[in-house]
Amino acid sequence: MTTDPLVVFTPSGKRGRFPVGTPVLTAARQLGVDLDSVCGGRGICSKCQITPSYGEFPKHGVSVSDDALSDWNAVEQRYDDKRGLKPGRRLGCQAAIQGDVVIDVPPESQVHRQVVRKAATARALSMDPATRLYFVEVEEPDMHSPTGDLERLQRALKTQWDVENVTADLSLLSKLQPALRKGGWTVTVALHRDHTGAAARITEIWPGLHEGGLFGLAIDLGSTTIAAHLTDLETGEVTASSGLMNPQIRFGEDLMSRVSYVMMNPGGDVEMTNAVREALNDLALSIADEAGIDPALIVETVFVCNPVMHHLLLGIDPVELGQAPFALATSASLSLGAPEMGITAINPRARVYILPCIAGHVGADAAAVALSEEPGKSDDLVLIVDVGTNAELLLGNTTQVLACSSPTGPAFEGAQISSGQRAAPGAIERIEIDPVTKEPRFRVIGSDLWSTDDGFDAATATSGITGICGSGIIEAVAEMRMAGLLDPSGLIGSAEQTGTQRCIPEGRTHAYLLHDASADGGPRITVTQGDIRAIQLAKSALYAGARLLMDEMGVDTVDKVVLAGAFGAHISTKHAMVLGMIPDAPLDHVSSAGNAAGTGARIALCSVAARAEIERVVREITKVETAIEPKFQEHFVAANAIPHASDPFPHLSSVVTLPAVAFGAGGSGGQSGRKRRRRSAS
Amino acid sequence: MTTDPLVVFTPSGKRGRFPVGTPVLTAARQLGVDLDSVCGGRGICSKCQITPSYGEFPKHGVSVSDDALSDWNAVEQRYDDKRGLKPGRRLGCQAAIQGDVVIDVPPESQVHRQVVRKAATARALSMDPATRLYFVEVEEPDMHSPTGDLERLQRALKTQWDVENVTADLSLLSKLQPALRKGGWTVTVALHRDHTGAAARITEIWPGLHEGGLFGLAIDLGSTTIAAHLTDLETGEVTASSGLMNPQIRFGEDLMSRVSYVMMNPGGDVEMTNAVREALNDLALSIADEAGIDPALIVETVFVCNPVMHHLLLGIDPVELGQAPFALATSASLSLGAPEMGITAINPRARVYILPCIAGHVGADAAAVALSEEPGKSDDLVLIVDVGTNAELLLGNTTQVLACSSPTGPAFEGAQISSGQRAAPGAIERIEIDPVTKEPRFRVIGSDLWSTDDGFDAATATSGITGICGSGIIEAVAEMRMAGLLDPSGLIGSAEQTGTQRCIPEGRTHAYLLHDASADGGPRITVTQGDIRAIQLAKSALYAGARLLMDEMGVDTVDKVVLAGAFGAHISTKHAMVLGMIPDAPLDHVSSAGNAAGTGARIALCSVAARAEIERVVREITKVETAIEPKFQEHFVAANAIPHASDPFPHLSSVVTLPAVAFGAGGSGGQSGRKRRRRSAS
Repeated sequence: MTTDPLVVFTPSGKRGRFPVGTPVLTAARQLGVDLDSVCGGRGICSKCQITPSYGEFPKHGVSVSDDALSDWNAVEQRYDDKRGLKPGRRLGCQAAIQGDVVIDVPPESQVHRQVVRKAATARALSMDPATRLYFVEVEEPDMHSPTGDLERLQRALKTQWDVENVTADLSLLSKLQPALRKGGWTVTVALHRDHTGAAARITEIWPGLHEGGLFGLAIDLGSTTIAAHLTDLETGEVTASSGLMNPQIRFGEDLMSRVSYVMMNPGGDVEMTNAVREALNDLALSIADEAGIDPALIVETVFVCNPVMHHLLLGIDPVELGQAPFALATSASLSLGAPEMGITAINPRARVYILPCIAGHVGADAAAVALSEEPGKSDDLVLIVDVGTNAELLLGNTTQVLACSSPTGPAFEGAQISSGQRAAPGAIERIEIDPVTKEPRFRVIGSDLWSTDDGFDAATATSGITGICGSGIIEAVAEMRMAGLLDPSGLIGSAEQTGTQRCIPEGRTHAYLLHDASADGGPRITVTQGDIRAIQLAKSALYAGARLLMDEMGVDTVDKVVLAGAFGAHISTKHAMVLGMIPDAPLDHVSSAGNAAGTGARIALCSVAARAEIERVVREITKVETAIEPKFQEHFVAANAIPHASDPFPHLSSVVTLPAVAFGAGGSGGQSGRKRRRRSAS
Repeated sequence: MTTDPLVVFTPSGKRGRFPVGTPVLTAARQLGVDLDSVCGGRGICSKCQITPSYGEFPKHGVSVSDDALSDWNAVEQRYDDKRGLKPGRRLGCQAAIQGDVVIDVPPESQVHRQVVRKAATARALSMDPATRLYFVEVEEPDMHSPTGDLERLQRALKTQWDVENVTADLSLLSKLQPALRKGGWTVTVALHRDHTGAAARITEIWPGLHEGGLFGLAIDLGSTTIAAHLTDLETGEVTASSGLMNPQIRFGEDLMSRVSYVMMNPGGDVEMTNAVREALNDLALSIADEAGIDPALIVETVFVCNPVMHHLLLGIDPVELGQAPFALATSASLSLGAPEMGITAINPRARVYILPCIAGHVGADAAAVALSEEPGKSDDLVLIVDVGTNAELLLGNTTQVLACSSPTGPAFEGAQISSGQRAAPGAIERIEIDPVTKEPRFRVIGSDLWSTDDGFDAATATSGITGICGSGIIEAVAEMRMAGLLDPSGLIGSAEQTGTQRCIPEGRTHAYLLHDASADGGPRITVTQGDIRAIQLAKSALYAGARLLMDEMGVDTVDKVVLAGAFGAHISTKHAMVLGMIPDAPLDHVSSAGNAAGTGARIALCSVAARAEIERVVREITKVETAIEPKFQEHFVAANAIPHASDPFPHLSSVVTLPAVAFGAGGSGGQSGRKRRRRSAS
């Protein structure tokens, strides 16, 4: 009695014995080894590439002879001639087992391959997309046993891929017959299956083997900006990224002013819905163009957004979100057809997934942050602050996770700032002010040089120096405070008080002159008293939200702070703490997570398991409502000083010494008071 | 120890003991008695009306005292004041059990009430519609435990009605919040649940209790005519019926000419799809208008149609149906959203159900006939002939059912007939020709008088006498044959040969003058040689199809013949047999079923169980393809004579003696030959 050859797969370590002549792909499937195949073993898709190893493998207890696999065959030769196989590679569906062998499955041949998604933390994302390609051979019709082409395609998917309950939209049905005939009764279908276990849906069909790829869009739909990542649904790689301003800004800069617009203008919600949908279609077309792909290859889209944007995107009047009890029309995740929500620039059968909302003020964007940052898996108590026009805050650890939102307004995104602009080449993003000379130096997006470096003018000649972006304004305010140009109440000193001519009068207050190119017809970039007030309001709201969550949790300090947001990666943690945006913490425990909401969208785009996970997590998050909590207002007022005066900040004090200056409170108090009244009246 | 009161329900006979104070509705539910309720026992919908009986009931072993139920209460009084309750009626949710009682559930209080659908056969249809109304009380939102309005509505449907997996389209979501608030957190929803067990879908929502009814459309989409029945989904009653000509006629009178149109004109399928969808929307609006209802109350539509119409309705190119192997894009039943298929005049979330197709030439209309006529439940071997531009034939009994279709052309619907018209007031529908005088008398639609009766002119003054409809032309040809005006080959004799001046020359052949109002500027209605040839082709195709099924079954005779079709009820069975449309059978075994396909559509509209049933039945039907069967052509040629010459007709001979006449075959043979060549060339 002879023993069947032993096959050992790496890196999984799975092993088993198979009869001589078994294709490697078949062995892999029987052992549950993750080896990709679109064509189902027909030697045409080349997804099942493997690397056999020969020689002695004491670790595996195997000795592999040179003839452990069947000879290189004509199918492999044809593929190699046409596309090229890497040296040592074989096609798993062609190479058959002849003796004991060790087979390595390279990462690109794994279905559930890991995609490193964050260099900083080296966390990995397992590919598990809702939409995948399947190549099938379909029976030809038989007049004497009549069945529909769809029914025979369904049968092929069942027998060849074990996929059941397959459905197709009408628009797909009209493409079915030509595709089957053109492909000689072979087709590739893109099949969408979501994590709810509902029916599988054919979203696209191609004659024969489709090799043009499959794409998805992860979209972070913010109040001010919209960011999209075009993602390859087979590899998880981001093929192109693009962004634009949310066109709803013309109806109101922040969420509450958009809700007010609807209240004052019946039908205003429809205007805003149409505006954002049109922008999304433009964005989809431009990103596909940038990547050089047919927009019809985009078959999935994931959206993350706050509740008001959520309702306005979906065509639901957001007016209930503007008043207590802030009832969402629906809080659950949504799985929709793209045309149903006006997204018509991509595949007409593309599916849209929208993450669940946490509460009436805490949206799918906060859920996406939770998915990306996973506070519920942290042993340390972590505060995650997603900075935007509406900030989302999560506080938690393995025991409990709390969430709230805070209406910071658009100042952190460069809006409501006199020289503010969005993050783009030419925008000042880093600022330092010499505490002795009070002279600034800065860097602009698009160049690594400081403004005091040689070659800076040449390096910025194209972009110019056009304004200050969100991270720039945070640094500017914090640097002004550290240089003694700003007192704790937020008042800018005069030239006499500060000893620098850069503090120039502006009306009844003063401004700090950061950059003056007016002699050459360029801009004059200043930080005005109004800018300071806008940032103070924004950071007070942010801090008050954090403080409220800490109160609810019953803690006075947090172990870690994570800054996130569209420009989260660019915020200097030290400056954020000087400003008093966040609670005091050891500086090396404060980190930037970049656009965590966008990352969460990408994770949900690439993984149905992640969708199931975040839906479960959201149900377990404790929601804290800031809008009706009197303590929020108390914290907000107490957080007005720079840094906030409501809590001690020992960690900050050990790093930075802030000058004890005071420039008088008359004018500023009045202005601040006016601002607050305007705010509460809206 | 006292015993709980005994409650006996009639007509079901269900009985049980319940504690004093139990509402009758609750008792009914616990016993599984079919007692309707939309409001769930809140005393506002009045659907649960019952009639208590008092006195001695030896049959049930019960003695019912006057105080067996709780006193008439304020809720019942208010309903009686407002709407009126029939004498003796109580509301089942208000009347509580106090002692032994006999409770009758009147038919209108039954959910699954029986609706008599065919007076002739007294068969009944059990109401079991996919869409039903549910009244619910929804929890108000709570800021401290935020949930979406949809999620709270879903929870209410689960707890109050035990309905799970409820979904809602985006367009419904946008109506949800205003409806809940306007209804004071009570709403009525129309919920669609199909027989596949998929999710329940909210198709409409109304604040508070909706009392405006709920409707469905059963549509028989024929090649030549479209017939629609507006049906009350609560009672099953037909509220209004309407029909119009299929506007695709301008692209081709029969199916094959429409397929040819697509082959010759790329994009022609889109033109035809748009044309029929536009007509369907017009039809929906006009029928709603006729019934005086809001078209948005139409929440369901069922279609039956042949395969080419099926594909053209759905926007699928029908070209594969024009050539062997006649592959359908899909043969399964379809459940779709109305807008997806361009039906926009009714509720935007209305669901469409399309019956399964049997084969590439045997469509959902044949399936509907099978559903209505149930050949598979017949002990006798029954032949069902659905007469239309494309005829469907079913032959079977409890052992086996066979199906085929036959391209009869539009002659039976009055098209291709010189004086033909569709069945409408003014159309001649019944004809008799005196065998001695050769003089005709006739009746027109809209009057019960014969043309020879007194008052006929006055009775038809409004409509006029405008042409001959399908049943009229069948009678005309058969009567001409019986009167000796036509020989077995189908040739009309001359005045000399027949002895009547009504046989007038027309070109090289003759025509029979049925009615001449030309002196008064009215029409001159004749039956021409061309008309006879068109009917001969049509009836030969019909007979050949029947004969082919009999061959397949291995029989020479059938026990019963059922004539169906849009004008099936109007066909004289004797005349049909004289013509040779159908195989010989005892005349009292030949019956008319009316529009069986339309009836099948109505059954599927009113019952999800019927949908499951026909899907099962269709899978078991044996399909016979006429188009490629050489024997079909043989039978077709052999059936050209009047009556057909291919089989004996002893039963007909015992009733009718046909004159042995012969008018020569020269001219007619030539014409008939030309027709056949044209047909086979297309």
